[in-house]
Amino acid sequence: MVIPSLIQHKRDGHALEPAEWGQLIRDYTEDRVPDYQMSALLMAVVFRGLSPEELSALTDAMLASGDRLHFEALDRPVADKHSTGGIGDKVSLLLAPMVASCGVAVPMMSGRGLGHTGGTLDKLESIPGFRTNLGLREAEAQVQRIGCAMLGQTPEIAPADKRLYALRDVTGTVESIPLISASIMSKKLAEGLNGLVLDVKTGSGAFMPEVSQAIELAHTMIGLGRDRGCPTVALLTAMDRPLGRSCGNALEVEESIQGLRGEGPEDLMAVTYALGVEMLLLVGAARDAAEAGQKLEHSITSGRALETFGKMIQAQGGDVRVIDNPERLPQAREVEVFRASRDGVVIRVEPRRIGQAIVELGGGRRRVEDAIDPAAGFVIPVKPGDPVKEGEPLASVFAGDRQGVEQAMRALAEAIVIGRSGTLGPLITHRISARGMEVL
Amino acid sequence: MVIPSLIQHKRDGHALEPAEWGQLIRDYTEDRVPDYQMSALLMAVVFRGLSPEELSALTDAMLASGDRLHFEALDRPVADKHSTGGIGDKVSLLLAPMVASCGVAVPMMSGRGLGHTGGTLDKLESIPGFRTNLGLREAEAQVQRIGCAMLGQTPEIAPADKRLYALRDVTGTVESIPLISASIMSKKLAEGLNGLVLDVKTGSGAFMPEVSQAIELAHTMIGLGRDRGCPTVALLTAMDRPLGRSCGNALEVEESIQGLRGEGPEDLMAVTYALGVEMLLLVGAARDAAEAGQKLEHSITSGRALETFGKMIQAQGGDVRVIDNPERLPQAREVEVFRASRDGVVIRVEPRRIGQAIVELGGGRRRVEDAIDPAAGFVIPVKPGDPVKEGEPLASVFAGDRQGVEQAMRALAEAIVIGRSGTLGPLITHRISARGMEVL
Repeated sequence: MVIPSLIQHKRDGHALEPAEWGQLIRDYTEDRVPDYQMSALLMAVVFRGLSPEELSALTDAMLASGDRLHFEALDRPVADKHSTGGIGDKVSLLLAPMVASCGVAVPMMSGRGLGHTGGTLDKLESIPGFRTNLGLREAEAQVQRIGCAMLGQTPEIAPADKRLYALRDVTGTVESIPLISASIMSKKLAEGLNGLVLDVKTGSGAFMPEVSQAIELAHTMIGLGRDRGCPTVALLTAMDRPLGRSCGNALEVEESIQGLRGEGPEDLMAVTYALGVEMLLLVGAARDAAEAGQKLEHSITSGRALETFGKMIQAQGGDVRVIDNPERLPQAREVEVFRASRDGVVIRVEPRRIGQAIVELGGGRRRVEDAIDPAAGFVIPVKPGDPVKEGEPLASVFAGDRQGVEQAMRALAEAIVIGRSGTLGPLITHRISARGMEVL
Repeated sequence: MVIPSLIQHKRDGHALEPAEWGQLIRDYTEDRVPDYQMSALLMAVVFRGLSPEELSALTDAMLASGDRLHFEALDRPVADKHSTGGIGDKVSLLLAPMVASCGVAVPMMSGRGLGHTGGTLDKLESIPGFRTNLGLREAEAQVQRIGCAMLGQTPEIAPADKRLYALRDVTGTVESIPLISASIMSKKLAEGLNGLVLDVKTGSGAFMPEVSQAIELAHTMIGLGRDRGCPTVALLTAMDRPLGRSCGNALEVEESIQGLRGEGPEDLMAVTYALGVEMLLLVGAARDAAEAGQKLEHSITSGRALETFGKMIQAQGGDVRVIDNPERLPQAREVEVFRASRDGVVIRVEPRRIGQAIVELGGGRRRVEDAIDPAAGFVIPVKPGDPVKEGEPLASVFAGDRQGVEQAMRALAEAIVIGRSGTLGPLITHRISARGMEVL
């Protein structure tokens, strides 16, 4: 294989052969193709895209570069959810135990926060002792026993994706729908799923703010899932404001526990239920949406979802007492209330600014190797459209020191905009499946 | 400087600041920017191009990365020619001594052959003993003494370009007019010139076959030269057939000597004169084209050009006896005549196929490290439009062994096409200067 010719071919708008993609990914993983050739090829892909055949070949090659989870012998169907990431998005923490309580196994591999969006692993690790670095065989056994596991991408899963992602991150080649799709799906397909639900965020706080791009991403991933025996459905949900009230790792665990008790904020629960219904339907664990909704509701009212969450904490080495004693979660040294500067209506709660403020507080990462302060964050009960009075509490800041508090108060003053009139846009806007798109 | 952001900026169609290009090239040359980031950026440039300000900054940064020739104290003006390369293009070997004999210093830095086009250094090195690796101070002294020097790009000249070119060669990022222009001009500007003439080849055997692309390349380089005090003019010349009769290193030296004696083939001499006239005019060494032409002609008829060529050979360690005894040049073991297979008219003499055949004979390089056979090549006296009779000699093959002869005969059968009618297209088609373009 003459790599410069392949790069030129892609650069000039032609498709590479599936076998060429396969060989290329194998050779790259085994250090026979240098980074400088791969990054030039990736940049050509950013400009030229990938044909459906190329995308399939790339995804398969990345999947084949590593090991996978096996649930062929399990007596239940297996499903998972993937979110493109947002602020206050703790849906995974509720969804895994809820769906597991409905008889569907959930082997959830997640990531860490980077930049302005949070990561499920960081949230879970704010529970003292919680361990996310499960081995594949360990995760399989736990799923079999408890019904769910939440773990990080192990080194055995899609190692080619791991290397490619690290390269893309430093070479300006992240923003490509086919490359994003191949990266996500190569990992999700390694979970051995019977069904996958995608939560594709849109709006100012989303990785891909534009609805049109979110739709294209959803379609691309759905096609990849369908062709590989993993029926996939996507919901487009609003990330023009934070989801729920809590933003920050330990604060979000606390809100998740409230949610599993049936006391979660309305928007968080609505997104969680909508995604859960899709998961149950995809794997045939409910006849229709109504039944699926009832099963999920019962998982909460019966206490089984919370119980499953507790079992998972225990199985993964965490302090299960946080469920009844949330004060065992890391607590911020400094707490301060942010108040409305004037009468009016909340026009915007800008999620990207909130996410940046969490990073500034040490609650998120600028670089992969950064340590984080799990207690830092915000609780923001107001939403766009809410009328407010001058001096009324709009949010709470949780910080490690006074300087952090002051910085965070300034960030809130920028993020929460009060004006004459504002409205809350719809939360769940589109449903996309292999059969087409519904605008909700 | 955050490199991924710069790459993204360029990728998204924005221009980088001149200072950013400067820093980037310095950091790359000093190993603070890795190849994998540079190659991704270069691919983005292939797609997005460079603004005039970016192109200037990149060229200046590459020039500033190394040393240069100094002729400020010289009593004569300094000029050079650059060709984009072709088959049978031995113009440099005639032009340097001819122009030097007209009182214009010519410090000519050239390259080696790679792929199907030949290289001036390889041609010169077929002269026994000829040394092209002159140091910069040595080249300056020789130019002062003899009027010309022909040397390779020394390690001190534009080292950033050297590294970038090697990277582009293996990452599919060669084909970019701004990158090609910056690469050529950073080296030519390091020669300390008062004027530069470009021979931009067009047609099937050219690096850039399309006239429109050749014009764009010419305009780009002319702008770079003008803005840096080096007036630059370009001629577009035909490379849809070989130039002259000889193709192959030693064979071309022999034809160059014939040319310097006034016995060169018409097309070779026409291109050489046209470029020489431009060089003399650019630096004010003649009042008009007529005077410039007379001076150049006199350099031949007086024997001064050939004498200067001999002095240069001697100064650079070569065996000057080759001038009177061309059999002292490397001789091929096997020579065979290729004859017309039928009556008709020559439709095509395909230069790219001839160039490939020379590589197959060992007379050119597939890879930079390949050694070459200086005696291998062709003499092809026929041109498109010539009527031929079956059995008439059309070309001679010069090869190291019988296998080479047979391969080369097959190549000629492909390259030389005989049909009912054919014509020879014009040789010099366009003249481009900072003032505009004339179609000739």
